[in-house]
Amino acid sequence: MHSIQSYIKEQIDTDFNINDELPFEISEVELPKNTIITHYHQVEKYAYFLQEGIAKISLIKENEERILEFFFPNTFFSSYTSFLTQKPSDVEIMLLTDCNLQRIYVDDINKAYQHSLLANQLGRIVTSHYYIQKTNREKDFLTKTATERYQDLIDNRAELIKEIPVNMLVKYLGIKPESLSRIRKEMM
Amino acid sequence: MHSIQSYIKEQIDTDFNINDELPFEISEVELPKNTIITHYHQVEKYAYFLQEGIAKISLIKENEERILEFFFPNTFFSSYTSFLTQKPSDVEIMLLTDCNLQRIYVDDINKAYQHSLLANQLGRIVTSHYYIQKTNREKDFLTKTATERYQDLIDNRAELIKEIPVNMLVKYLGIKPESLSRIRKEMM
Repeated sequence: MHSIQSYIKEQIDTDFNINDELPFEISEVELPKNTIITHYHQVEKYAYFLQEGIAKISLIKENEERILEFFFPNTFFSSYTSFLTQKPSDVEIMLLTDCNLQRIYVDDINKAYQHSLLANQLGRIVTSHYYIQKTNREKDFLTKTATERYQDLIDNRAELIKEIPVNMLVKYLGIKPESLSRIRKEMM
Repeated sequence: MHSIQSYIKEQIDTDFNINDELPFEISEVELPKNTIITHYHQVEKYAYFLQEGIAKISLIKENEERILEFFFPNTFFSSYTSFLTQKPSDVEIMLLTDCNLQRIYVDDINKAYQHSLLANQLGRIVTSHYYIQKTNREKDFLTKTATERYQDLIDNRAELIKEIPVNMLVKYLGIKPESLSRIRKEMM
């Protein structure tokens, strides 16, 4: 199963080994489908690593849910702006399936950041991934039509098309259900 | 004048002093107004620190320029996705005034990331700032009207209203010039 330890081994040019001690505490949790792990206006206290399962992060726009991202195994996720600033979250995180998670408490990682090379390498790389993901989404919304964005999902994110119900896909693409039906027909 | 050294001192909980040697090489450059320091499709080789001046980063949407961000002194900037991935940039960076810059070459910082705590702390913090900035922009576009976004600039980014010509502000807000005129009239 994926773990923070195996992620470090994959992502960082380091002599860290999977059984070595991490420079910060972690805890493991199993949580059922539909658990909201971070509520709107809650201050985010944890960075989560997804070992198994699927999660989504969303916000409310004009009383409607907009899905910002789906998360699959072997990724970190969090209400990350709230985690970094320790201000209330304007997003919500919900588990779409039963999930196995590892999590790191904000004070523990911040302590490790003061002295640990490895903790900082991890923080830097995870934040860079978040940044790239966010930037790609921004550029997609600025430069692509809904049809093109849907085609991109089919081409590049097959797991998303396969695992995520259509009513959630439309909230991620930022379109109406009838638009997705039309796009799908045009593609046939 | 602002410098990478003073930025580190301000932003990182460290015993680094302004006259200490940095764990990576930097060079200083003075460049005139209207210099394009990163072209579309060019691979970004530098992270820049703005000591004096103003820069903008933009992309092309349907043959029209969209401005993603303006940069003011005491900030890092770069075509950062290209810098991280070493793939061609889909944004352009132009200096709006004469600028004093410090810059770090990509291979130099990547070498420092292998062993230097301070380099990783800096990389992590700069990337976190980029991330927060990007996320705030995304949420603004998802949840606010053009009028609200313009009001936010007036309330929170006075330097932007003061220094940036109106024809660029509209490209940043993602609206038509006549819409901005209307918004301004409504606000009177």
